[in-house]
Amino acid sequence: MFICMFSKTNGKPSSWFVPVENGYCMSWRVAVEAYNERAWRTVPVQCLRYVENYMLGGQYDQDINMVVEQIYNYLRDVAPAADGKDAWILDIDETCLSNLFYYQGKRFGVDPFDPVAFRNWVQSRSCPAIPAIYVLFWKLINSGFKVFLLSGRDEETMGQSTIDNLHNLGFFGYERLILRSPAYRGIGAVPFKSEARKKLVAEGYKIWGNVGDQWSDLLGDCTGDRTFKLPNPMYYVP
Amino acid sequence: MFICMFSKTNGKPSSWFVPVENGYCMSWRVAVEAYNERAWRTVPVQCLRYVENYMLGGQYDQDINMVVEQIYNYLRDVAPAADGKDAWILDIDETCLSNLFYYQGKRFGVDPFDPVAFRNWVQSRSCPAIPAIYVLFWKLINSGFKVFLLSGRDEETMGQSTIDNLHNLGFFGYERLILRSPAYRGIGAVPFKSEARKKLVAEGYKIWGNVGDQWSDLLGDCTGDRTFKLPNPMYYVP
Repeated sequence: MFICMFSKTNGKPSSWFVPVENGYCMSWRVAVEAYNERAWRTVPVQCLRYVENYMLGGQYDQDINMVVEQIYNYLRDVAPAADGKDAWILDIDETCLSNLFYYQGKRFGVDPFDPVAFRNWVQSRSCPAIPAIYVLFWKLINSGFKVFLLSGRDEETMGQSTIDNLHNLGFFGYERLILRSPAYRGIGAVPFKSEARKKLVAEGYKIWGNVGDQWSDLLGDCTGDRTFKLPNPMYYVP
Repeated sequence: MFICMFSKTNGKPSSWFVPVENGYCMSWRVAVEAYNERAWRTVPVQCLRYVENYMLGGQYDQDINMVVEQIYNYLRDVAPAADGKDAWILDIDETCLSNLFYYQGKRFGVDPFDPVAFRNWVQSRSCPAIPAIYVLFWKLINSGFKVFLLSGRDEETMGQSTIDNLHNLGFFGYERLILRSPAYRGIGAVPFKSEARKKLVAEGYKIWGNVGDQWSDLLGDCTGDRTFKLPNPMYYVP
């Protein structure tokens, strides 16, 4: 009976249900966010319009706003030690800064990653801020947390542009910007970021929260008391 | 400029975008799946129709099918030892068996959990199978894996009904059914399931995969080489 019911409705919803808009791409996006879909290289081409609409049509912003709301709920419950060692970690790309304009030119991730074009984009210092994260950033700093910006961006080729871009937008007063030094080139984000967090913990910091758009920001060692996954259906960082 | 663009589109999509259907509830559901929303007690009442439509309108089935597709992709890449110790762990509720009919009477999780009514439902032995997981179950067994069914259902009050319900549907040939014995009553799912998995590993089993609809199925110790999160917007098990 169950099978019958589902055969009937699957793909052909009964008339009293709202029709499923591109259910495949919605399933794919949720699978990305739930970390079922891993190590994917590009957005499935049939999901181009879906991802475009998701990114530009308001749902992406709403999803970010909800995660930030959950961060505020969490902040209300924590009791920082106020010893100067209360830390938060924020990722940069698709967390503090948006590469959406860049990815519009790359069919929202349907095109494969283009390291030269991406470096040029970063060096143009024109990433906008993600508004809700910018507000969070200042709320954290004003609440006495030390904010660490931890990013896999290459320090040598993108360090100055990243600093300039952040400062131009009003991201200053953070405790440290940690980028990928030459020693970590070619190393996955999980070991690179784990090492960086372990060093902070060894320095006596307590990592209360850790915010990123990639699961590789949030897995590994010393991930923090609470992790928050921001949405990103455009690319996957291993 | 970025802020302007987003203020303009947020909530009021431009005319060339598909309008966002109940974006709040979609954000909420994705936050549940991505483990941003934790320890929630009931479905937000404003999301009743959204969750009903999600569960009955085809998207829930499609999401499950995509996760199972990802399991098959993973299975193609693994090389089991074929020593009789290759294990998979499957949860029961909303994994092997569906409680959707029960939750229809509980407004799809808008009503709070009702332990007496749920026990009566389980004892009625009328849970249907989740079709894609039933197929996966037999594929795993026929591929030589030992399947362990690991559930927080109370062994004393629900053990026999669970066995009967599973067998009536054709779930047999599994290696072991592990339910919550009296010693584990009142203990969270993460420590209970971690203990159970640790025992299996101590017995020499290699856990290749672990499938459940709750993050508490997939976190803790000995979680397995790969975990798979099935969707469930109706309830949260701590």
